[in-house]
Amino acid sequence: MSAVPVTTSPSDSGAAPPRVVVEQVTPSVDGGRYPVKCLVGEELTVGADVFADGHESVAAAVAVRPAGGDWRQLPMRHAGNDRWLATIRPDRTGLWELDIVAWIDAWTTWRHDAEVKADAGVLEPVDLAIGAQLLADAADRAGPAAADAEHLATLADRLRGTDPASALPAVLGDERVDHLMWHHARTGTATRLDRVRHLDVDRERAECSAWYELFPRSWGPPDRHGTFRDVAEHLPYVAGLGFDVLYLPPIHPIGRTHRKGRNNATAATPTDVGSPWAIGAAEGGHTAIHPDLGTVDDFRFLRDRAAELGLELALDLAFQCSPDHPWVAEHPEWFRARPDGTIQYAENPPKKYEDIYPLDFGTASWESLWTELRGVVQHWIDEGVRIFRVDNPHTKSLPFWDWLIADVRSRDPDVIFLSEAFTRPKVMYRLAKGGFDLSYTYFTWRTSASELRAYLQELTTPPVSWFFRPSFWPNTPDILVPPLTGGSKNAFATRAVLAATLSASWGIYGPAFELMESTARPGADEYLDNEKYQLRTWDLTRAESLAPLVQRLNHIRRDHRALRRNRSLHFHPVDNPHLLAYSKTAGPDRILCVVNVDPDRTQEATVDLDLAVLGVRESDDYVVHDLLGGESWRWRGRRNYVRLDPASETRWPAHVFSVEIERRR
Amino acid sequence: MSAVPVTTSPSDSGAAPPRVVVEQVTPSVDGGRYPVKCLVGEELTVGADVFADGHESVAAAVAVRPAGGDWRQLPMRHAGNDRWLATIRPDRTGLWELDIVAWIDAWTTWRHDAEVKADAGVLEPVDLAIGAQLLADAADRAGPAAADAEHLATLADRLRGTDPASALPAVLGDERVDHLMWHHARTGTATRLDRVRHLDVDRERAECSAWYELFPRSWGPPDRHGTFRDVAEHLPYVAGLGFDVLYLPPIHPIGRTHRKGRNNATAATPTDVGSPWAIGAAEGGHTAIHPDLGTVDDFRFLRDRAAELGLELALDLAFQCSPDHPWVAEHPEWFRARPDGTIQYAENPPKKYEDIYPLDFGTASWESLWTELRGVVQHWIDEGVRIFRVDNPHTKSLPFWDWLIADVRSRDPDVIFLSEAFTRPKVMYRLAKGGFDLSYTYFTWRTSASELRAYLQELTTPPVSWFFRPSFWPNTPDILVPPLTGGSKNAFATRAVLAATLSASWGIYGPAFELMESTARPGADEYLDNEKYQLRTWDLTRAESLAPLVQRLNHIRRDHRALRRNRSLHFHPVDNPHLLAYSKTAGPDRILCVVNVDPDRTQEATVDLDLAVLGVRESDDYVVHDLLGGESWRWRGRRNYVRLDPASETRWPAHVFSVEIERRR
Repeated sequence: MSAVPVTTSPSDSGAAPPRVVVEQVTPSVDGGRYPVKCLVGEELTVGADVFADGHESVAAAVAVRPAGGDWRQLPMRHAGNDRWLATIRPDRTGLWELDIVAWIDAWTTWRHDAEVKADAGVLEPVDLAIGAQLLADAADRAGPAAADAEHLATLADRLRGTDPASALPAVLGDERVDHLMWHHARTGTATRLDRVRHLDVDRERAECSAWYELFPRSWGPPDRHGTFRDVAEHLPYVAGLGFDVLYLPPIHPIGRTHRKGRNNATAATPTDVGSPWAIGAAEGGHTAIHPDLGTVDDFRFLRDRAAELGLELALDLAFQCSPDHPWVAEHPEWFRARPDGTIQYAENPPKKYEDIYPLDFGTASWESLWTELRGVVQHWIDEGVRIFRVDNPHTKSLPFWDWLIADVRSRDPDVIFLSEAFTRPKVMYRLAKGGFDLSYTYFTWRTSASELRAYLQELTTPPVSWFFRPSFWPNTPDILVPPLTGGSKNAFATRAVLAATLSASWGIYGPAFELMESTARPGADEYLDNEKYQLRTWDLTRAESLAPLVQRLNHIRRDHRALRRNRSLHFHPVDNPHLLAYSKTAGPDRILCVVNVDPDRTQEATVDLDLAVLGVRESDDYVVHDLLGGESWRWRGRRNYVRLDPASETRWPAHVFSVEIERRR
Repeated sequence: MSAVPVTTSPSDSGAAPPRVVVEQVTPSVDGGRYPVKCLVGEELTVGADVFADGHESVAAAVAVRPAGGDWRQLPMRHAGNDRWLATIRPDRTGLWELDIVAWIDAWTTWRHDAEVKADAGVLEPVDLAIGAQLLADAADRAGPAAADAEHLATLADRLRGTDPASALPAVLGDERVDHLMWHHARTGTATRLDRVRHLDVDRERAECSAWYELFPRSWGPPDRHGTFRDVAEHLPYVAGLGFDVLYLPPIHPIGRTHRKGRNNATAATPTDVGSPWAIGAAEGGHTAIHPDLGTVDDFRFLRDRAAELGLELALDLAFQCSPDHPWVAEHPEWFRARPDGTIQYAENPPKKYEDIYPLDFGTASWESLWTELRGVVQHWIDEGVRIFRVDNPHTKSLPFWDWLIADVRSRDPDVIFLSEAFTRPKVMYRLAKGGFDLSYTYFTWRTSASELRAYLQELTTPPVSWFFRPSFWPNTPDILVPPLTGGSKNAFATRAVLAATLSASWGIYGPAFELMESTARPGADEYLDNEKYQLRTWDLTRAESLAPLVQRLNHIRRDHRALRRNRSLHFHPVDNPHLLAYSKTAGPDRILCVVNVDPDRTQEATVDLDLAVLGVRESDDYVVHDLLGGESWRWRGRRNYVRLDPASETRWPAHVFSVEIERRR
């Protein structure tokens, strides 16, 4: 198992190096450098190539433990072509360790040879003596387990007895012998992995969650800055839509120096409220609450009220400062100084963002900075927050996130981090490898059926599915792109259906989404009169709201566990490039979606279903119930007709079918 | 770059952890656990994903050195999507080390920003001051290189001078500044790989060689045991066929106890010569020479005579003993003892091989055994042997081979080991990962076009092509399988063409192959009257010999370097399942083969050439010269007709075309 051993004499460790090879362990992220993600209680199949020289049998076990706990070994089984498998099911959240142990299995080798020789009539007394020796040696090793030792010694004696030939079937047929020999007959040096692998075991919301983002300051009465108490009053609306995570943009005091005005104007008027991401003012920084939102007690009231309604609060971690942030005066060493003594503001040349001072994660004082930032996270954890949406993590040092997340989760493994890394694919993936549980994705820009199919196949198959969990957002306060800028209700519906059914985690920025806000600021892929820079007033009672569809989708997700995971996603061929057909399954729960990505035009097609994926046999009748439109059809065989017509009053631009099999006798 | 860092405080190493990520290094075997193979003087492109947080530029270099030598750094270039590449060309054989160094490139970042700001007219004095600081800091670091330091300091002064705006173009346009800053401006902690990678750099015969195997004892006059001197007399025949490696089965004394008779008979007659693989007798063991073959001087005579004719001797390493081997008495601890005190002979229950005692590589005395075996190899290296064909390496401890080969090659990197591991695929590959330069393959049993295509695609693409080099043998003394058992000359020709053109290394067991010996012993996939157990007399002058074709193939291989490597192999579509069309290219040298794998029937087809692979444009005329049959055809475009007719006197069941482009003006 060692790398290129350039030595001039064999190792002098005493025992010969282990003979069994263990390779190609799965699941695996970058050869074990990063943990594999899974959910608590979920089954995970561990595989490895296990083999040795020669013709002897090998045996292998997966060893697992919660970090710091006791190791447990589970036997692996040979699945052919030297591939060995075992299924584990981690039963608590947090970091787990995984190793593989493999050894030459002298007992199984002897058993096989003895059986073959006995069948061929060439078994000799010495063969039985070898078996007896194996049993006796194992009995010695089993000493502390007295009952085991005694049983093995008895079997050894039988093989050495006066009638060994008749003893052989009795020994080989003994119900306990293989089990006892698996435990006690290991000889020689066992092989172990050259590095222990890690599993990051999460609670369910780390993969499956429905997020609603709102700006609290817009939820008061018209013309007054909204408060946590105002939001608390509207929580039944959000909970009623079926969401389970309520995400608030930064709730901290907002800087005044270089504050941005409405529509991102360079100069703010005295009444402009500023961007919540320009964090820090005289009132405090990342652990303070904006006075206009309320007090810490108001925050706790909102948190508790949300919890009563099944909503978990998610806060924003935006590790950057306004020029007014207390850290600027207290810790200038945490920022990058320019030769003229000024602090470097954010820029993307030639653009300048003078309202934001980035923190310098590589400062010589990085230890005190990192520790302070961990303190911020811990502050909100102590306030009962367990979910964080991290703003632009890709502009902060990657080793910082590796350290921060591992550190926080070592103490509180239920904390979930969502990465808002709209950046290059490898950076996005590296953040996930380093610990982020969930990530925003390119879904927001993937609109054609072929783009979506290719992207989802990448996300839901190894290796990506082993470390990256997507969260699909049709919109965010920062991003308003086609097809939503057209304002078509069908387009909004299509994007909602895709997000909610393709990905186990989805979210919307509301009420802009369900109220189908669709006007972009000229020259920007961003909303006009964006809440990032001003208060808005929303009419939640508007007749044209998409709220009923959003609610329906969330209820379907709650009722159908097939939609609560990503790995079973399967695309089915369909002979119209504007339609996407896919299924997700979880045991008997089968969801089949057919979505029109050209939703303002009628599209029809024949879907060519992979019946095996759906658990349907060629001879089965099956009924597809449209959980959106309410209609049902009886289908049979692979090829079935679908039609999605935008003019129809009762139909959405998608079918979300539950598939029910009517098995013939 | 570290694995899951579970700590409760940031590292206290002083400097912040490196910000640049280096991932997905290629070429790579099992994440760097085993070396990548390449040939001396060959170009190897090293790739890695390199990126960091934020918007600063990164830079990366490949660092390489022969093990123990001095590191050299070569810049990597960005090839898009965060992938970085550099091409290296190791210039001596042996183990090399490879690392990647990557850092935040402050100079390139500043250069880019300054250019953008200058273009937009927003460049400020402080921006120039930042550049001047970078140059001055680099000048300080370049101190020992005085000329560099002075040049950088001068540039810094210009940016700080009275007319900095006009200085900017001069500084950015300086011819040396980027080069100097690449060397001297590195700040912060650079990233390195978490383990240094290894390259195993071989001489050309480790990939490209033509082997001829013969039993010296059959090369004397009829009815006398042949000698090394007899073989020496026939060397012009072997060299004339164009081979460059002459491989001899074991040349050691042969055991008498349980000696096998002709045709593998359990009992030998007194005149039976026995199998050369039953090594060891009163006359000696693995370092002795069978007295009937001659003396050590005769061996040296043969070796030197072969060298004069361009033939390199390859010896057989068969690490097993006859019961008469001196080790059995001197070192019983190197064998496995049974409870009755006897030594365990080889068996594959219910079959017994009582003429062979396997060595016990896991014995408690493994160190003295391994050292003795290394001594055997060194003995023959000292006798001028640099190529070993290793018998059944898969029945000996894999860590033993890892150690032995690395140890031998650390002293003599020109030694080549060919693995005769006809075993399961993962074991075969693991032997190659552990150091075997070449390996026998499943080619011997792959006969249909689709089987061959699939197998060759596996062998010639990563990751397999990074560690495994095939040697294709149509026959061996142990293996006589269809299609050769039919005795058809066309079948022999097809197998020779496939082996010699698909694989850069090929070999035959002769003269059985070229004389088209085709009778199997009933019930065995082995020759009747096999030379393994008896002397044979061969009539090399037989009219029906395939020698002219074998000679032609070896000469084509010498003249066309396209055939001397494996990685350029490309299959072209052909509309007849009995034909295989493939090309190999090396610069302007282009070979295109069309082979009939149903060679006793006429097969015709249209070949649909991937012209780009051949360097041919749609508008080109090109001429295909059949290097076997001698005819030429002028072709144009992708689709061309071929016909291979067994009845034709002048044609072989294959075309081996050299492709010559006639470019239009």
